[in-house]
Amino acid sequence: MLVFLNGRFVPEEQAVVSVFDRGFLYGDGLFETLRVFNGKPFRWKQHLERLQRGAEFLKITLPFAAEALRAFAGELIVKNQMPDSLLRLTLSRGVGVRGYSPQGAEHPALVMSLHPSPGAPASGPAPPGRFRRHAGSETGAPQAWKLITSSFRLPAGEPLAQFKTCCKLPQILARAEADAAGADEALLLNTGGFVVEAAGSNLFWIEGGAVCTPSLASGVLPGVTRAAVLEICRSLGFRCRESGVTSEKLKRSEGIFLSLSSWGVVAAKSLDGEALKQSPLIGQLRLAYRDLVRSETA
Amino acid sequence: MLVFLNGRFVPEEQAVVSVFDRGFLYGDGLFETLRVFNGKPFRWKQHLERLQRGAEFLKITLPFAAEALRAFAGELIVKNQMPDSLLRLTLSRGVGVRGYSPQGAEHPALVMSLHPSPGAPASGPAPPGRFRRHAGSETGAPQAWKLITSSFRLPAGEPLAQFKTCCKLPQILARAEADAAGADEALLLNTGGFVVEAAGSNLFWIEGGAVCTPSLASGVLPGVTRAAVLEICRSLGFRCRESGVTSEKLKRSEGIFLSLSSWGVVAAKSLDGEALKQSPLIGQLRLAYRDLVRSETA
Repeated sequence: MLVFLNGRFVPEEQAVVSVFDRGFLYGDGLFETLRVFNGKPFRWKQHLERLQRGAEFLKITLPFAAEALRAFAGELIVKNQMPDSLLRLTLSRGVGVRGYSPQGAEHPALVMSLHPSPGAPASGPAPPGRFRRHAGSETGAPQAWKLITSSFRLPAGEPLAQFKTCCKLPQILARAEADAAGADEALLLNTGGFVVEAAGSNLFWIEGGAVCTPSLASGVLPGVTRAAVLEICRSLGFRCRESGVTSEKLKRSEGIFLSLSSWGVVAAKSLDGEALKQSPLIGQLRLAYRDLVRSETA
Repeated sequence: MLVFLNGRFVPEEQAVVSVFDRGFLYGDGLFETLRVFNGKPFRWKQHLERLQRGAEFLKITLPFAAEALRAFAGELIVKNQMPDSLLRLTLSRGVGVRGYSPQGAEHPALVMSLHPSPGAPASGPAPPGRFRRHAGSETGAPQAWKLITSSFRLPAGEPLAQFKTCCKLPQILARAEADAAGADEALLLNTGGFVVEAAGSNLFWIEGGAVCTPSLASGVLPGVTRAAVLEICRSLGFRCRESGVTSEKLKRSEGIFLSLSSWGVVAAKSLDGEALKQSPLIGQLRLAYRDLVRSETA
């Protein structure tokens, strides 16, 4: 496997950074995970825009223009023969002086690597229309996930929540709690007591026939898949709502699903051991999202 | 400069980790910074105990016993001829599978490196007693620091605050705010609105002649220097109190100081541009701390 490292394609075992890289020392960086399908990273532009907003916030200069990076990503996919995969892009502040001050770190590190895809959109030709209503029956759907509510909380109302930073210990420990409970994913509350997202995915639920999700203002990572799901809802005429939510309210909803780049739309079957309703809207959104990936990467 | 990397001493430029190391990907690790004086790491035991508590919490197995690590640290100091320095110790979870789940990461990385000391305790023989009252006048004191209150907040009441994790972006951005304001250090509030600590140091203030500091329960990193300062206060018969504090209360106090491994006790001269009172207790504590370092490393 070849890895893109600061402008070069290097074998995996040579893809290394200094132990003085601030990404390693302090989590001082950002990343993106993109679904690659048919040789193309899905929603590259949206992922890069989020990365660029984060880099501006952290005052890290992207060492390559977005177009050059897109070309390198394409080259990486071809070289590794992985047209159906996940692309991880990491931007770190690089090596600086000792201590928290970012002054003097002038050479950011940029890494791209490919990973096996966990959930391939069903094969076959791309669908004719961009958005299509589905009957809700499908084959090859991923198994619905078991969820738990994590004991770790995210700070409410913090600007850093908008960016996909490399400081992910709350998410890691939440996911470890899920692993320990035999669950697939963990929901995280903010310090205000509202559920904001899952460790590695955004949260949606169905209520009164409307597709609901926590608002970005509550400290939610603005997921690229989250935005695509909202776009699909609007196109298909589904009602959408952004609001605060508690675990108890989620358990009484008509269904919960998660959105994430790797798997797309995934239904939840239980939360903290309680079985959840399965709104037919969820299956429809899953198929519509699959269609969107296939159509945009056709 | 030689760096200790997973059991070997390697030249600085060969001290590298994989771009798939979870420390680099997610800040999935812990670190300690120790003052080395007279060739000895000050309060090694206390730093290692904090590291071990953190490793237990994160479920990372330390790849070396504490005694072996102490011997390696001593060897590193001798090899680099840096008896008066700072020692950074980093423990990362190492390489695992893609995603947040820590499952499958079985080979943690352990790195130790030395860095120039910013503030040497005054030279000369160690003082006769372990704790000595000082008159409060001294030469060679570091300049008092300008402080600002950061706009970034830490989650209140979160268990992760007890450990020195590698997820330090709030601290980095707080310190960047201080840099931008021409200040030396930034105070951080928790999401409950109380000041809990500074970006890279613990906070103390003097009130009614008592030495005060935020309680650990408010989400404070249990600093090794913080503990040493409280120990000195008790030994010298100074009154101590742990309590919540706001920026406004700090500005009306009899003085503020910070504690950190690198510099020891440092007085603050201003907060958000307002001049602070200079309690004579601060200079006494600074000298007593300096004596403690010299006596324990003699």
